[in-house]
Amino acid sequence: MKALVYHGPGVKAWQDVPDPVIQDATDAIVRIESTTICGTDLHILKGDTPEVASGRILGHEAVGTVEQVGPGVTIVKPGDRVLVSCISACGRCQYCREGRSGQCTGGGGWILGYMIDGTQAEYVRVPFADTSTYPLPEGAGDEEILMLADILPTGYEVGVLNGKVKPGDTVAVVGTGPVGLAAITGARLYTPSHVIAIDLADARLEAAISFGADLTVNNSREDAVAYVNSVTRGRGADVAIEAVGVPASFELCTQLVRPGGHVANIGVHGKPATLHLESLWIRDITVTTGLVDAYSTPTLMQLVAARQIDASRFVTHHFKLAEIADAYDVFQNAAETGAIKVVLTS
Amino acid sequence: MKALVYHGPGVKAWQDVPDPVIQDATDAIVRIESTTICGTDLHILKGDTPEVASGRILGHEAVGTVEQVGPGVTIVKPGDRVLVSCISACGRCQYCREGRSGQCTGGGGWILGYMIDGTQAEYVRVPFADTSTYPLPEGAGDEEILMLADILPTGYEVGVLNGKVKPGDTVAVVGTGPVGLAAITGARLYTPSHVIAIDLADARLEAAISFGADLTVNNSREDAVAYVNSVTRGRGADVAIEAVGVPASFELCTQLVRPGGHVANIGVHGKPATLHLESLWIRDITVTTGLVDAYSTPTLMQLVAARQIDASRFVTHHFKLAEIADAYDVFQNAAETGAIKVVLTS
Amino acid sequence: MKALVYHGPGVKAWQDVPDPVIQDATDAIVRIESTTICGTDLHILKGDTPEVASGRILGHEAVGTVEQVGPGVTIVKPGDRVLVSCISACGRCQYCREGRSGQCTGGGGWILGYMIDGTQAEYVRVPFADTSTYPLPEGAGDEEILMLADILPTGYEVGVLNGKVKPGDTVAVVGTGPVGLAAITGARLYTPSHVIAIDLADARLEAAISFGADLTVNNSREDAVAYVNSVTRGRGADVAIEAVGVPASFELCTQLVRPGGHVANIGVHGKPATLHLESLWIRDITVTTGLVDAYSTPTLMQLVAARQIDASRFVTHHFKLAEIADAYDVFQNAAETGAIKVVLTS
Amino acid sequence: MKALVYHGPGVKAWQDVPDPVIQDATDAIVRIESTTICGTDLHILKGDTPEVASGRILGHEAVGTVEQVGPGVTIVKPGDRVLVSCISACGRCQYCREGRSGQCTGGGGWILGYMIDGTQAEYVRVPFADTSTYPLPEGAGDEEILMLADILPTGYEVGVLNGKVKPGDTVAVVGTGPVGLAAITGARLYTPSHVIAIDLADARLEAAISFGADLTVNNSREDAVAYVNSVTRGRGADVAIEAVGVPASFELCTQLVRPGGHVANIGVHGKPATLHLESLWIRDITVTTGLVDAYSTPTLMQLVAARQIDASRFVTHHFKLAEIADAYDVFQNAAETGAIKVVLTS
Repeated sequence: MKALVYHGPGVKAWQDVPDPVIQDATDAIVRIESTTICGTDLHILKGDTPEVASGRILGHEAVGTVEQVGPGVTIVKPGDRVLVSCISACGRCQYCREGRSGQCTGGGGWILGYMIDGTQAEYVRVPFADTSTYPLPEGAGDEEILMLADILPTGYEVGVLNGKVKPGDTVAVVGTGPVGLAAITGARLYTPSHVIAIDLADARLEAAISFGADLTVNNSREDAVAYVNSVTRGRGADVAIEAVGVPASFELCTQLVRPGGHVANIGVHGKPATLHLESLWIRDITVTTGLVDAYSTPTLMQLVAARQIDASRFVTHHFKLAEIADAYDVFQNAAETGAIKVVLTS
Repeated sequence: MKALVYHGPGVKAWQDVPDPVIQDATDAIVRIESTTICGTDLHILKGDTPEVASGRILGHEAVGTVEQVGPGVTIVKPGDRVLVSCISACGRCQYCREGRSGQCTGGGGWILGYMIDGTQAEYVRVPFADTSTYPLPEGAGDEEILMLADILPTGYEVGVLNGKVKPGDTVAVVGTGPVGLAAITGARLYTPSHVIAIDLADARLEAAISFGADLTVNNSREDAVAYVNSVTRGRGADVAIEAVGVPASFELCTQLVRPGGHVANIGVHGKPATLHLESLWIRDITVTTGLVDAYSTPTLMQLVAARQIDASRFVTHHFKLAEIADAYDVFQNAAETGAIKVVLTS
Repeated sequence: MKALVYHGPGVKAWQDVPDPVIQDATDAIVRIESTTICGTDLHILKGDTPEVASGRILGHEAVGTVEQVGPGVTIVKPGDRVLVSCISACGRCQYCREGRSGQCTGGGGWILGYMIDGTQAEYVRVPFADTSTYPLPEGAGDEEILMLADILPTGYEVGVLNGKVKPGDTVAVVGTGPVGLAAITGARLYTPSHVIAIDLADARLEAAISFGADLTVNNSREDAVAYVNSVTRGRGADVAIEAVGVPASFELCTQLVRPGGHVANIGVHGKPATLHLESLWIRDITVTTGLVDAYSTPTLMQLVAARQIDASRFVTHHFKLAEIADAYDVFQNAAETGAIKVVLTS
Repeated sequence: MKALVYHGPGVKAWQDVPDPVIQDATDAIVRIESTTICGTDLHILKGDTPEVASGRILGHEAVGTVEQVGPGVTIVKPGDRVLVSCISACGRCQYCREGRSGQCTGGGGWILGYMIDGTQAEYVRVPFADTSTYPLPEGAGDEEILMLADILPTGYEVGVLNGKVKPGDTVAVVGTGPVGLAAITGARLYTPSHVIAIDLADARLEAAISFGADLTVNNSREDAVAYVNSVTRGRGADVAIEAVGVPASFELCTQLVRPGGHVANIGVHGKPATLHLESLWIRDITVTTGLVDAYSTPTLMQLVAARQIDASRFVTHHFKLAEIADAYDVFQNAAETGAIKVVLTS
């Protein structure tokens, strides 16, 4: 089959590789019908994750049809059309049984396109298929559901649910790339009073408004703390969601949040941040970090099928799988292309 | 002043009475600018509550201006425009300190227009004024905020929050009078997949749709259990909210709810219901009852001010205070008049 | 092998039957080393559960050694010493993934010794072995861990956790048979101020004291409501746990509980109860029902291994498996024999 | 009257001062019968808190008798024997109404002995007396209840409840001074599997054992991370409680905690700490900070009165109020004197 293979920092190729085969009793082979590219794929390609071996097929998001299953697969069967989640869940370890499959100790977690071959290919082997795929619901398009492979549950679980967004809250979202927009989408499910989008780029702030932010701050030229305090009459944001992954944006969140509020970190960080305990120790704040677990995937599917979430808004560009090099170019140059998510179909 | 006085079952009069005066250090006197009529007022008038003394001024909902405060009132001051909540909160007892002022043991709870004189008058004495009134927010009309005196927090706290409505849920609301409509309004804040309104009257079901129900069942001619099961593929409702107050509707709720789901009773009951423990013991259900506590009033105010709740939809008719007899007629004959809430202004 | 077979109401036999074999890829065959008898086994024997087929091997609690596993079993392996839980968990359905395996829709739930052959035998087939058995921890005896097959998680999950027992609470436990004693044991983990045991038999109340109750009421001759009110200065119990399964004890719980408190039903009921909504609608109470899910089994194992729970207290009598008829006699006549749990070993 | 007055860094005097008088309607004057010294008093004396004015009477913990109340005090009355909490609660602001009086915006919070005159005196003026004092329960000694003025609710709320300690958990407490010992006492209420005390001083670790720690690490010579990992089989602590207030101990907590676990900071910090987001972003951790709110004071009183907490263990030394200079010497030199809490009586 054809697949996108990583050959070390900066080098990738859409090339022939052997078809995947069932290795464990709980595996399924899925024929990819649509997949997409994630910011993490770009990180791997840049060489930021030396643990990724050369020769690895990239990608951890897909919708497709099950071709074959191992003898330990009891729910999923050939012919099923499924979402392949970025999180593989062994379903047996203590973390999986508590709904925290992102921390799976039984061989799952985020492994696709990272520790094992991924979904930017014609076929993929999905471990623990019964607990790592989800049947497509009626009433939702494939590419909408594809947005539930990673981005929407990430914004919702790690941003909104960890941040404990509640009706009436003022929510500040720092960083309005794809994951920040997913957090805004998720926050709106709880009817906050205000969602304040904060970013350095006006174009992204405009996107944020179309995703549900009602107020915006360009913090390249405005003082976000002063703005949030003015909106909340000096109280501060109930929830501040970090969706960038740099120390400055995390530290900004800890300044934006009110006493008793929540800072929910979604960003992938490469460096430590400073936690100003000399002022924060007394302020009753809660800081959370996390990888997506995908426990919300069935809920989000219901909401998409019930037309309560419009997931199609994320999809800005379409390509055929064989045009994946072009798709990477467009996605990588989001500042010019306006790309949020690009969809590749077979 | 003039006030609506209860003179025993079936008898009421808009008449002259002495002006209220400060009795306790924590009292305020509020000049009523708008008030409304509640189903409970009708119950009192019918004589269902023999504990209500003849001579009592009715009403427990108001918006007005503070005229005078006792020496123990530290926040509220003359000239403040405030919402008078149906719940008076001493603010000192253990229940108040836990946010459960409906159960106040310090002299508060629901007392206005019940154990002490109420708001269907030109002036009212409000005990524990600092913790029983709320300053009007900017950006919201008086009559919208008046809906927060009782009906909206009742539907939200006792129906939606007790029922633990979550995004993606299927919520069944049995009874779509004013409180059922408030529960639907509150449920929508959590973006359920479906809100199924169940009632015996088509006119009320039509109102339910305009308040946010997306599906309806007239259970005078349709099987509500079968309908909810068909919508949820046999699973049942995640949350069933009782907003009538008769055994049949409560028992229906226990049949509608899925294993692991919630039955939230809002209805005021006069008779016991049957709890079918022979089938329910194994189904992991949670049943809650409750009186409103008003802890959500500030949140709901923010949502009204932020235009996330349209509270004006509840108001179907307007009267002057002196026309209160007509207002009662219209409210009492809701089936013909379509009245949901009638607003009386000074 | 030998097994205890049900032959219709009142008839059971310890007899030769075919050895169990692997039927599904996710099965394991476990050699029973210790098992016990549950009140539910007596119900089945009496014929209260007509859905149980004649020929069924009884029993749903065991400790043993894995002999054989199917190809879909990835964690459990031959030679492992395990607890067999009364709850089989498919691990794949939505209920299992939310920790509610008692409601498993994937073929699990309570099935052992009920819908499929059980553990009162030399061998048992355990479906979904990876998620339905638990490796024995170091530092705990087999018969202590055997108490975690049903009784301890039932009392803890359905009584204590559903009832939301907190430090400082006054907890009333109505019914102090084995499950009531398990609820008392579980409640003590949260350091309530008082655990009030309520029963009709003095002998059981004495047992309750040795399990951690500090106050007792014999409600064959004392007024339990008056007693609980006197202990709580008129407030009522924070949590009332029903561990009998008859309408009177459930209704007593609803009278014992304070406004804002919890009634947690554990009892298996055969008849409906009356829910006095005419007084309860205003009292902010929460009533829960439930079957054990076994999600707390790992936690309880840790507590037994750490010597924070003394599970051996439950075991009053010992027998060999072949003496199971005698064991049933002793267990059935608990009033005379003082039996709480009887352990049968191979 | 006599009082301990702060005269700038390093200078204090037990001297004559004017008697306190009622200033606001909600004030009470309390005659001090017992008080104690807190680590915070030492900080103020050292000059670490320049916001404290010279002339300030120190102390924020007391048991005494109410002498006089203002006209807005409705519950407390002269002659009542009460605990004076370190937290004054206006009872009216949004934070107070949510149980977060440590963040009171209505003039309360931690003000005694800090922004207003305190309790190391013969009399004290207590603002918002109804919501800032607690009647002494029967069955508990004054000096036990005195421990509930600050130290026990601080350890319980900010350490144990913020950290969400649960039965079966492994809890690591870093720093076993008075507040760390209070956290250990509070953690034991939830029956963790293990409480691991971590400190640099063997004497404090011995005290920790007598307060309920079952394992200890002297991290001046042992590797605390390796030790906790060995106890938890590589998993890490479920909850790590910081009770020192320096960057190193906070950062240690973030290394001790397991994925999905909680770091609860109690320590008063003067400097920022480093938050290693480059490793923590993916680990699902929750970090909380906070000042005590005193919402748990009634619960802790019940537990002391029910003999479920032995608060007398904290008291190592006794003095008369007039000997307060000696008491400070003993408390300040805890390393030699073994002082935990010193009690001063009138």
